[in-house]
Amino acid sequence: MPVVEITHREEFAASHRLHNPALSDEENRRIFGICNNLHGHGHSYELEVSVRGPVPGRTGMVMNLLELGRILRERVIADLDHKNLDLDVPWLAGRITTAENLAIAIWERLEPVLGAHEGCRMHRIRLYESTKNRVEYCGPAS
Amino acid sequence: MPVVEITHREEFAASHRLHNPALSDEENRRIFGICNNLHGHGHSYELEVSVRGPVPGRTGMVMNLLELGRILRERVIADLDHKNLDLDVPWLAGRITTAENLAIAIWERLEPVLGAHEGCRMHRIRLYESTKNRVEYCGPAS
Amino acid sequence: MPVVEITHREEFAASHRLHNPALSDEENRRIFGICNNLHGHGHSYELEVSVRGPVPGRTGMVMNLLELGRILRERVIADLDHKNLDLDVPWLAGRITTAENLAIAIWERLEPVLGAHEGCRMHRIRLYESTKNRVEYCGPAS
Amino acid sequence: MPVVEITHREEFAASHRLHNPALSDEENRRIFGICNNLHGHGHSYELEVSVRGPVPGRTGMVMNLLELGRILRERVIADLDHKNLDLDVPWLAGRITTAENLAIAIWERLEPVLGAHEGCRMHRIRLYESTKNRVEYCGPAS
Amino acid sequence: MPVVEITHREEFAASHRLHNPALSDEENRRIFGICNNLHGHGHSYELEVSVRGPVPGRTGMVMNLLELGRILRERVIADLDHKNLDLDVPWLAGRITTAENLAIAIWERLEPVLGAHEGCRMHRIRLYESTKNRVEYCGPAS
Amino acid sequence: MPVVEITHREEFAASHRLHNPALSDEENRRIFGICNNLHGHGHSYELEVSVRGPVPGRTGMVMNLLELGRILRERVIADLDHKNLDLDVPWLAGRITTAENLAIAIWERLEPVLGAHEGCRMHRIRLYESTKNRVEYCGPAS
Repeated sequence: MPVVEITHREEFAASHRLHNPALSDEENRRIFGICNNLHGHGHSYELEVSVRGPVPGRTGMVMNLLELGRILRERVIADLDHKNLDLDVPWLAGRITTAENLAIAIWERLEPVLGAHEGCRMHRIRLYESTKNRVEYCGPAS
Repeated sequence: MPVVEITHREEFAASHRLHNPALSDEENRRIFGICNNLHGHGHSYELEVSVRGPVPGRTGMVMNLLELGRILRERVIADLDHKNLDLDVPWLAGRITTAENLAIAIWERLEPVLGAHEGCRMHRIRLYESTKNRVEYCGPAS
Repeated sequence: MPVVEITHREEFAASHRLHNPALSDEENRRIFGICNNLHGHGHSYELEVSVRGPVPGRTGMVMNLLELGRILRERVIADLDHKNLDLDVPWLAGRITTAENLAIAIWERLEPVLGAHEGCRMHRIRLYESTKNRVEYCGPAS
Repeated sequence: MPVVEITHREEFAASHRLHNPALSDEENRRIFGICNNLHGHGHSYELEVSVRGPVPGRTGMVMNLLELGRILRERVIADLDHKNLDLDVPWLAGRITTAENLAIAIWERLEPVLGAHEGCRMHRIRLYESTKNRVEYCGPAS
Repeated sequence: MPVVEITHREEFAASHRLHNPALSDEENRRIFGICNNLHGHGHSYELEVSVRGPVPGRTGMVMNLLELGRILRERVIADLDHKNLDLDVPWLAGRITTAENLAIAIWERLEPVLGAHEGCRMHRIRLYESTKNRVEYCGPAS
Repeated sequence: MPVVEITHREEFAASHRLHNPALSDEENRRIFGICNNLHGHGHSYELEVSVRGPVPGRTGMVMNLLELGRILRERVIADLDHKNLDLDVPWLAGRITTAENLAIAIWERLEPVLGAHEGCRMHRIRLYESTKNRVEYCGPAS
């Protein structure tokens, strides 16, 4: 069976502050620059999840893209949209909310669900923080 | 002389919370919904400023678009980017930071400078809060 | 009170065929070209609705943009998305489903609801048929 | 010689219905959801083809991107644009026209032509069904 | 009959240099800045033309958008795409090729053709020089 | 430590002409087509640079994306923006300025700087010449 990669994209609006409480204020400013602003800032994030799997003749689909969208909205977007990433999201607690760490945490939250779809495996999380900056994570094995 | 409209666009990343302290918590939740989230949220805003004016033969320009960009960055973006709109911006103090109020405040901040350019008048502020939502303000006379 | 214009955007995926049953097949082909293809074709439409109104100090909003989105999805998108515009939509029956006629029909469907919001008036329907082609309708008085 | 990947993008507007005639109506509704709508629906598809190859010093090009565009338009877009994918395209006959199957069929249609270019090999078909959903196919060997 | 505005968009890739030969080199540098670079620079321009007119019941169209696109490509894009705007375009000779002057010249080139369509009038030329900068011209009467 | 890929995007506006002086005028026209236009043409290029590396717990970042942007602007954009690629850029001298050759030259210019960041390696240069055409280069080892 041919193997195809499918990708679904959603948006969320959130605020955060880059700050490591284990470091001094001066070190935080040096490392995180304007992203360390005391009262925080925010982004309209764009989030993409990619799944790879075989295409059975019976359905012609790796999995239904609308179903992939539903899982993404229920497991991730509902928790992040119109929220403060540092204070409102239990599964981000204790992490510096850089784009890199967000991508890793979102992978960990989706992989158990999407990896259980027959024959599929989760392939990539891509997260846009703005039109200029994005990150990608392909899991611990990559 | 022909009259042309020129527009420059910039982005900024900011956080805010929609909340009117004169109202009860319940009324705030009813009016502002998820935008009233206690710890705030954020957006990648896109901001456009439009100026109209005659095109002199000597320059072929209403005004230099790179100069318009410089004014926008110095007078507005520098104050808003990577900031909390409710707490970090003196010229927004006391305003509920809806997209509508932001557009009005940005107009008031730019008009004295841009309206002073020879023959020009400021025409419009357009502010995108996300790819789905935007507002426009054309000044008090419109 | 300052007057501001707010705009919300949604997408829908639909099929249609441009064909006037009162004309001959040859005339239909001449007028509508490839859009007259017997078995139809389709588009990912982008639809924008704009409302103008005063901004009261109590809310700082013309109306809640999320509420405007809800009305647009319930009154329009739910009827058009993943549908055949010629066969599946009662309020388009008897109309040639050009972008122009779609914009007019969507205006007529939304104006009674949006024009009833206190102090507001509906200002514009903008409909993108593709990244290259769009239409705008500002109502019968424009 | 350095190896570079080049990509060309085109759009097409088409209608389709997801339906497997070997299954019951109920199963079709369960599997394909709103995409099974009896009279079909449509999309503005974006299609990308990627080719990899060495860059000779004489031309500085893997192959001319304008030539790649011409091949894509002649071999694929001309057959799909403003068409019903289920009824109008001989080389899609008998396939459920999911994005996955479209990508595979387009690969099979282009690979014999593009793989014959000196030193090149076709690398990827990417197909956007909307701004939210896309698929990628990298051939049977991938 | 309802009046609707239709808009078609095309792209072209061109080079130019902003320079007024009647001024000194120093004045040119002061007025045009980096756009005065001796060997020129270039842009991927996006050009939109808007036409307004009544929508007859027989066609449901102001004019066929594909026909509007054909006129735009034949009368304007064919002359500007992959050209040097200062040296290769007879109808731009003697003009400083600012975005403002380009928009005016394109209006003058299209208006005699598009204004002759029954009941239509040309409404606007919008020209994007980049994602950040654009101009609009609505004709001498505006 | 998890490995993540980060990408920063910038734009530049430049002119060029595709022409190999070692070939006849006729051969140049045959190979490069409209891109061989005597007086050149131009593009609004979009340039992306991707870096891969581990994410230390102390910073949560591969490297600061704003720092990656600064390096890209200082080492590449400052030399290319509002320039003629054939005449104004010492490190492009002697190269046919195709998108392929630009991507290779930009890789060579950035790799010594970005590959020196602790634990990082440069992964990809992606260059858009227009919305339709792009190239990617992943280095000599790929």
